[in-house]
Amino acid sequence: MTTKPAIGFCGLGAMGFGMATHLVKSGYAVTGFDVWAPTLEKFAAAGGTPSTSLRASAQDKAFYVCMVATAKQAQDAIFGPDGILEGLPAGATLYLCSTVPSAYAAGVDKELGARGRGDVMFVDAPVSGGAVRAAEGTLSIMAGASEAAFEKGRWLLEEMAAPKKLFVVRGGVGAGSNMKMVHQVLAAVHILAVSEAFGFAARLGLNGGDVREAVVGGEAWSWMFENRSVRTLAEDYFPGASAVTIVLKDAGIITSMGRLLGFPLPLCSITEQVFFSGLDKGFGPNDDAGLVRLWTSEPVSSIQSTYSEDDKKAKLKLVTDLLTGIHLCAAAESLAFAKHVGIPLAQMYELVVEAAGGSAVFKDYATKMIPILEGNGTEDATIPEAYFDGLKKAVQEAQGLQCPLYLGNGALSLLLQTGKTLKLKSLLGLYSPV
Amino acid sequence: MTTKPAIGFCGLGAMGFGMATHLVKSGYAVTGFDVWAPTLEKFAAAGGTPSTSLRASAQDKAFYVCMVATAKQAQDAIFGPDGILEGLPAGATLYLCSTVPSAYAAGVDKELGARGRGDVMFVDAPVSGGAVRAAEGTLSIMAGASEAAFEKGRWLLEEMAAPKKLFVVRGGVGAGSNMKMVHQVLAAVHILAVSEAFGFAARLGLNGGDVREAVVGGEAWSWMFENRSVRTLAEDYFPGASAVTIVLKDAGIITSMGRLLGFPLPLCSITEQVFFSGLDKGFGPNDDAGLVRLWTSEPVSSIQSTYSEDDKKAKLKLVTDLLTGIHLCAAAESLAFAKHVGIPLAQMYELVVEAAGGSAVFKDYATKMIPILEGNGTEDATIPEAYFDGLKKAVQEAQGLQCPLYLGNGALSLLLQTGKTLKLKSLLGLYSPV
Repeated sequence: MTTKPAIGFCGLGAMGFGMATHLVKSGYAVTGFDVWAPTLEKFAAAGGTPSTSLRASAQDKAFYVCMVATAKQAQDAIFGPDGILEGLPAGATLYLCSTVPSAYAAGVDKELGARGRGDVMFVDAPVSGGAVRAAEGTLSIMAGASEAAFEKGRWLLEEMAAPKKLFVVRGGVGAGSNMKMVHQVLAAVHILAVSEAFGFAARLGLNGGDVREAVVGGEAWSWMFENRSVRTLAEDYFPGASAVTIVLKDAGIITSMGRLLGFPLPLCSITEQVFFSGLDKGFGPNDDAGLVRLWTSEPVSSIQSTYSEDDKKAKLKLVTDLLTGIHLCAAAESLAFAKHVGIPLAQMYELVVEAAGGSAVFKDYATKMIPILEGNGTEDATIPEAYFDGLKKAVQEAQGLQCPLYLGNGALSLLLQTGKTLKLKSLLGLYSPV
Repeated sequence: MTTKPAIGFCGLGAMGFGMATHLVKSGYAVTGFDVWAPTLEKFAAAGGTPSTSLRASAQDKAFYVCMVATAKQAQDAIFGPDGILEGLPAGATLYLCSTVPSAYAAGVDKELGARGRGDVMFVDAPVSGGAVRAAEGTLSIMAGASEAAFEKGRWLLEEMAAPKKLFVVRGGVGAGSNMKMVHQVLAAVHILAVSEAFGFAARLGLNGGDVREAVVGGEAWSWMFENRSVRTLAEDYFPGASAVTIVLKDAGIITSMGRLLGFPLPLCSITEQVFFSGLDKGFGPNDDAGLVRLWTSEPVSSIQSTYSEDDKKAKLKLVTDLLTGIHLCAAAESLAFAKHVGIPLAQMYELVVEAAGGSAVFKDYATKMIPILEGNGTEDATIPEAYFDGLKKAVQEAQGLQCPLYLGNGALSLLLQTGKTLKLKSLLGLYSPV
């Protein structure tokens, strides 16, 4: 048995801590850096080697994982004084697993060269799956790099990813970040949709537990709903598992890129604005499931529905139809954007269906949308009339209740823009010519 | 000299009180009904004859003006027990000046016939212009009725309207309400735009007075901005002159009709959702200028800008560019909707440019949009690159400040949807094929 290589790691947040300790459990000597001392103690207790110097954490490490929160943090950590680069030995492999703009990832690669460190193999490798999967080593990883870098560094990605969940995206450095970006269109919109749905349900007088039951396993299912609704029902927002500021940062990467490329992202833009209003209310550091408090201050699990079984079913259908309509338009928005930035759509499909951006509607309708985007779809594929009618009824009911449905109305506007034909081709055509 | 006919009037709110007392000043004997006693006292003090019975207020009145707040109130007032219809003499002319769905106005006409009161001449005549112009008798009035009803009842509309501001809309009963509806697309969006602009400016650290100066008289001017900003600067919201609930009701008429007809109204839908969040904060009964408190609790007139003159100018330009971009898309939305519901566009233009829906951008660009909608426009008319770039920069700056721009992002999404050509034809085509 060969000795397992030592690994450097920085950024021991919810995700990073899970990833790093998983590597420890798998038998690697991991030296971890973080700015927050209590995390370092926890890391030491889990068998890791804590380090209070980025430079030291990289010393003699042929493999280094950077999992900080933002591009700015990555820039400081990698290139700053006493940073990673100063410690990193010749020929090391550096993984950037943070979610960053693809242009930033490409910039890191260039800057390494410009600083005379072209010897460092750089892998652009954002991840998805949440803290639990990070700790299990079963993440989805979207990676872009040179062939040489993959040859050397692929094994470590495989350690952190689930079998078949390592997606090597063609296009080199930046392609991984682009894949993550288009995935996050779904993630961001679906996250807000969870709160919008629970908020609407609360105004309808529905119990949160009943809502969850109606959504999970049905047509309105999304990974985010199943995941976040646990925290919604428990009001586990302080801090919960994933702060509003995290997904907001991703939404910002998406809409910035949209502006740069001249690509419309109406649902994601709406989502970002509502996240901003969440920040205004001080919800930024809280779990994103806590955005439901934009609609109601009452715990949704304590609402006692007074409806008959039939009426309750009818009201719950308004909520599930709202979600279904939003998920359909989010699918179109993410896929059209993916096409625009050159992401292989079949690979994106494979990634999304079992990742945090997944939804029942995406699973069913992306298979119809992708051929249209690739120019070999049928002209006739349509949006089910029932989706359209259901969303329309939900919006109408919400109007009567004076309940804001930012995404519901945004999605309905898109469906109305397709004209009365409700063709999928028209929906996708709202983003760019198909 | 012939004796001036006696007039019945119900609904002595801000607008109705002005209209009724103007008629009193013009020498008419006006009997006015309202549910709120203090208003009746004020009306008596102004020379009117107060009445506490709808039926009595209509007794022997050959002309009756109904200016209540909603279609539901109108229904109760006209057709309810001891209502207007029971008092109204044979052959009387009944004016409904409230803003109601056109289908409701048409329904009143039908119900009159069905109840055996086909003798009553019904005039669908919503108004615009605000309380001041109501009291001066210089309103804009959009009227639809049969020729016979106009022949008999036109004179009273002329008493309440400014010269050349009585718009007889072809199409009979309902056409007046439709004209008002498409006008209110502009009114509603522009009202929210006032607060979004001041809110953004506050986050930029700009003084509210400087903002007003930069907007009024320039390309970013709107009637609503000039009118509302006086109250914004004075924080005159309690109750101010026009409650959020009033414009919200109009927005609801618009989006309901959009759903009914399958017509997208993305900006107006966004506006309605933000109004709903205003209600959630308890702003409903306050002046709509008070929606700026969704962005800042600081009085915008007290903000002391610390910028150099050049920097201040650059920051103010972000705010005016935001407004210009929103006004451009609102113009497209209202005109495309008007075309869809069969409103004569030249007449709408004439109405809007000097009414509450007016804006500098509407004045300039509607003249280019109308020919396109009528099928004889030029293919090449485009949105100025500067409008697009300006709006994009404003949205980008707001993103950096984490400041929600609901309408700014909505408008930018629409401009991005036109593709990089920025053709007016493409913008209008987002609403229906042109």
